[in-house]
Amino acid sequence: MVAPVSDRGFGPARHAELALLLEVAGTPKPGNVDRRRDLSDLHFEHFLTGAVGSAAGLELAESGASVGEAFEAAVAGMSRQGGGNTQFGCLLLLVPLVRAAADDDRDLTPAGATDVAESTTVADAVGFYRAFEHVDVAVGEVPEDAPDLDVRRGGDAAEALRERGVTLSDVMDLSADRDANAREWTGGFARTFRAAEAILADDGPVTDRVARAFLDLLAEEPDTLVATNHGEAVARDVMARAADISDPDEAEELAEAFVAEGINPGTTADIACAATFVALERGVPL
Amino acid sequence: MVAPVSDRGFGPARHAELALLLEVAGTPKPGNVDRRRDLSDLHFEHFLTGAVGSAAGLELAESGASVGEAFEAAVAGMSRQGGGNTQFGCLLLLVPLVRAAADDDRDLTPAGATDVAESTTVADAVGFYRAFEHVDVAVGEVPEDAPDLDVRRGGDAAEALRERGVTLSDVMDLSADRDANAREWTGGFARTFRAAEAILADDGPVTDRVARAFLDLLAEEPDTLVATNHGEAVARDVMARAADISDPDEAEELAEAFVAEGINPGTTADIACAATFVALERGVPL
Repeated sequence: MVAPVSDRGFGPARHAELALLLEVAGTPKPGNVDRRRDLSDLHFEHFLTGAVGSAAGLELAESGASVGEAFEAAVAGMSRQGGGNTQFGCLLLLVPLVRAAADDDRDLTPAGATDVAESTTVADAVGFYRAFEHVDVAVGEVPEDAPDLDVRRGGDAAEALRERGVTLSDVMDLSADRDANAREWTGGFARTFRAAEAILADDGPVTDRVARAFLDLLAEEPDTLVATNHGEAVARDVMARAADISDPDEAEELAEAFVAEGINPGTTADIACAATFVALERGVPL
Repeated sequence: MVAPVSDRGFGPARHAELALLLEVAGTPKPGNVDRRRDLSDLHFEHFLTGAVGSAAGLELAESGASVGEAFEAAVAGMSRQGGGNTQFGCLLLLVPLVRAAADDDRDLTPAGATDVAESTTVADAVGFYRAFEHVDVAVGEVPEDAPDLDVRRGGDAAEALRERGVTLSDVMDLSADRDANAREWTGGFARTFRAAEAILADDGPVTDRVARAFLDLLAEEPDTLVATNHGEAVARDVMARAADISDPDEAEELAEAFVAEGINPGTTADIACAATFVALERGVPL
């Protein structure tokens, strides 16, 4: 007999790639590209291409490469399509989670993911900065006290990072007040793991579970990408409108409204994607 | 500087995986799962999972494994989801095309693909038969003159294949009268390459181009999966109804009608998928 190929399951990198695909397919996810909706210059196919493109970087993470190297590779691969930034934020969450799942001495738990985050180095921070050279990412104000650490400098910030001894974990600490993804890094990926449990406890197709988890996350905290692009008041209004939804028709209406208004709660989608990865690792049935 | 990760493009295996995703996303593809439609027990997410699952087998094909081994591995990986047979036929076309694209001494042309097909061995035929053990595939009548070569026997047919010296190319020859995918193997993948050129010459999102190519293919020949499941007359009627479509609304109506009637022109989707792979290799923009 040949090797039992049917016994080879999905490793963490494949689960992460699949999470990228299931997340974008989940509908309705008001304001985001989903199975039923494109944005004007950002199409479903850009996300499919971004997911496949990021796979090599995710495999680096699974095989033990540093978080910064794996993240930069994933973002570089993701960027090989014309839609621009499709999954930068998702990958920022997925890479440490893949490492936690893959490492022999860690588990995919808040403690395991925190351990990955806190083990990052200055070199990881440099990799993170370099990732910004591959794609345009919406970012907030330059930190006033540290203009040499502006992420828009990309790899040019390497010297400043090294001089100040700033690790990737430090970078996330500096961003946590304005970026919900950074808060996942510094807070044990709390919303990610909670949403994963909701996905596991839900029923029906996984893409439907992901869409429901997205709406719950959106109703729970202001989306920080919306806050960056439109201000804190709009982000709070978006949260309130998501909290008002009481049936699927209203969710569809909100999806139409947000697309029309140019409201893109992308950070919430990132967390939904990371939660999908955790749910896949924990055996959500497909 | 680190290695220029941004310069790593998509290899043939990644393009094949992406073709599986773009094909299923293309809509409307009347009678098939697409971005807007599920079938009752076969959902979009099963195709996403099947595509990611098949990637390891496609990578085997890219790295020079035998066609039979790579195909069996791809099908085994594809089958790790609850929808059943999502992409068996696609993979039967993609694996030799990936080999033609990857091999140094071959090109992704009708001649190169034919060379791969004609170079297959009895061991490749055994791998093909074993693939049927991983998933239920709709097949036609048992060949009356060769009941020991019934594909439903899976790996149990290995002895008969070896005794008769039947290569995978021979198996395709035996099936070519009732399976359009086998006809691609024996006929230089003619429809695949023609549809690829149509996709390249078209404009707009690739998923839209794929859907149009699917309709053109469906209007051109009876779908052999429809013929297997419903008879030749129904397959000819399906072809005629596809040929009658003159605008996108009619295509949407046909999609609704075929789903309601249980008509699934899956072989035509397989060829559209293979054509998408060739178009990706030839640089269709994403």
